[in-house]
Amino acid sequence: MSRSIRLAVIPGDGIGPEVVAQGLKVLTAVLPQDVKLETKEYDLGAKRWHATGDTLPDEELAALQEHDAILLGAIGDPSVPSGVLERGLLLKLRFAFDHFVNLRPSKLFPNTATPLAGRPDIDFVVVREGTEGPYTGNGGSLRTGTPAEVATEVSVNTAYGVERVVRDAFARAAARPRKKLTLVHKNNVLVHAGHMWKKIFDKVGAEYPEVTTDYLHVDAATIFFVTQPERFDVLVTDNLFGDILTDLAAAVTGGIGLAASGNINPTGEFPSMFEPVHGSAPDIAGTGKADPTATILSVALLLRHLGLDAEAVRIEEAVAADLEARDGTARTTDEIGDLLAARVAG
Amino acid sequence: MSRSIRLAVIPGDGIGPEVVAQGLKVLTAVLPQDVKLETKEYDLGAKRWHATGDTLPDEELAALQEHDAILLGAIGDPSVPSGVLERGLLLKLRFAFDHFVNLRPSKLFPNTATPLAGRPDIDFVVVREGTEGPYTGNGGSLRTGTPAEVATEVSVNTAYGVERVVRDAFARAAARPRKKLTLVHKNNVLVHAGHMWKKIFDKVGAEYPEVTTDYLHVDAATIFFVTQPERFDVLVTDNLFGDILTDLAAAVTGGIGLAASGNINPTGEFPSMFEPVHGSAPDIAGTGKADPTATILSVALLLRHLGLDAEAVRIEEAVAADLEARDGTARTTDEIGDLLAARVAG
Ligand SMILES: CC(C)[C@H](C(=O)O)[C@@H](O)C(=O)O
Ligand SMILES: CC(C)[C@H](C(=O)O)[C@@H](O)C(=O)O
Repeated sequence: MSRSIRLAVIPGDGIGPEVVAQGLKVLTAVLPQDVKLETKEYDLGAKRWHATGDTLPDEELAALQEHDAILLGAIGDPSVPSGVLERGLLLKLRFAFDHFVNLRPSKLFPNTATPLAGRPDIDFVVVREGTEGPYTGNGGSLRTGTPAEVATEVSVNTAYGVERVVRDAFARAAARPRKKLTLVHKNNVLVHAGHMWKKIFDKVGAEYPEVTTDYLHVDAATIFFVTQPERFDVLVTDNLFGDILTDLAAAVTGGIGLAASGNINPTGEFPSMFEPVHGSAPDIAGTGKADPTATILSVALLLRHLGLDAEAVRIEEAVAADLEARDGTARTTDEIGDLLAARVAG
Repeated sequence: MSRSIRLAVIPGDGIGPEVVAQGLKVLTAVLPQDVKLETKEYDLGAKRWHATGDTLPDEELAALQEHDAILLGAIGDPSVPSGVLERGLLLKLRFAFDHFVNLRPSKLFPNTATPLAGRPDIDFVVVREGTEGPYTGNGGSLRTGTPAEVATEVSVNTAYGVERVVRDAFARAAARPRKKLTLVHKNNVLVHAGHMWKKIFDKVGAEYPEVTTDYLHVDAATIFFVTQPERFDVLVTDNLFGDILTDLAAAVTGGIGLAASGNINPTGEFPSMFEPVHGSAPDIAGTGKADPTATILSVALLLRHLGLDAEAVRIEEAVAADLEARDGTARTTDEIGDLLAARVAG
């Protein structure tokens, strides 16, 4: 019997292609002999938009759907108006492929420079809802550009959408040693959405008596991310709060260079998509300064999603060992990729 | 000629009454002889709600309006359903009295325990919009409590509301030595509101060529709050982002025990309201452990708002001197109030 992974690759903009190249290098090195990797590259992002005006044409969306998974580098460039590629490409993929679990683990690896004094033990994962909330694109602008303009943004939340992500989070919490799940929302102000989240959280929680639960307002949660991050195990939250909290999480751990993410469709109906949390960083593109580790850790999430757990662990252990062994001299994007590929192959 | 301040006092819940008592102690001590202080206490909060079901009756709202300013301790108790007092009392005051500038300074005082390694130089002020955004209470829930529930929260933003707070922020930035203003939003996703904010920010900015401007997405801003807080001078942002960022700001400086705020109606049409950023902390109420410094610094903001700048500075200098002189032994709420009152009087 032979196995194969049909992987779609979207290198994207800025440092995207550079870090994706290292991700593929490590992926190739870690895969067992009997697993064939077929990659197909999709030219999407700022360059394509400038050339053709396309962000994500229907045919390409249909073609992407035929893959087992998607590896994405980074999307966005200052030359493109803010929102065009985010809404037209990145969020379009997350919504079209129903990536309702946006999984973002945070771990303080050895030898990484956290800005926090005392180096707390950080090892938590944020389960960010990926298909609802203020990200739906609902809303609009009336009398645009006039002194009488009114602009609205509508956060849309459904019991259907909230329950499925809350269930996913409880299952993940139950499978971890500490079995703790924190809901983050702002239910003292956003009472409609917030109370629905809380009610569903409590209902599903009754099915998981072994999981300790907790609720925090998003403002209070940011305090604990800085002063007591070790208190968190699994967190579940809305799309926008998850966006904010996971950048903060990256800041308090080793920085955005290590933050991996998976946009997951747990039902398997659509391909899941893996990407570093960081952006396209056009200021350092081409300099060899980009850290590909976040992309390589995203490849580990991809492997785990495809059932290749042992290979995922090999990558994560290689990253930990690499950081442990680091002597402080600067390394290029390529060198980090080579070192990690060598570690996972060995 | 004699002057007087008619001050409304809302001690509120939990540690609210304790910290407000110290705020009044220091206010009394700092006021010049010729300024008469008339205080009137309003019994609002959890106890009142339990007893009568009232949050903020119209007559009391009308009575509050007759004051020159309001000093508020803290609102909220776990025995009251989340949102009842927040929406029915605290936010009702902010909206009714058109507190469109929610002013929240962050400063790293000497000898305070920041969780950040390296003790960066932090001295910035967040101008949080206070009367719009996701805080308007717009939205609702359909088929509440059923598996088909849909809950929405509508962020409402008007050119009128955004321009006035952006103008206030530019004026504040222009009056500070560094003259720097950062707009924080999420205009790559919340494109309608985000683009309006950005357009108005750029338009008003053209009138302030001496102010250096910058834009950050809210997720990126949280990173810089932790890794590079010294880069900020004045920030202006939406109601919800401001809520989140100012708790984070408190976390990276001396903690929530030092975070002051003013809910300001700059036109003077309505009384402005001053309150610590922290909540009612029912777990430590009555123990003497609450730090009244945030309330006392809020009194300084109140004095500055009323034109008593020299007295405001005396309080701020007293707090800095008090923290400088601190020897690490625990002090009660009362002791801190006494020490600061003595300093400002001396
Ligand atoms: C680029 C942007 C649309 C995106 C988001 O807001 O989700 C990014 O910040 C992220 O966290 O993946
Ligand atoms: C209590 C709550 C409604 C309030 C807010 O969200 O504005 C508080 O968090 C604050 O920051 O003053």
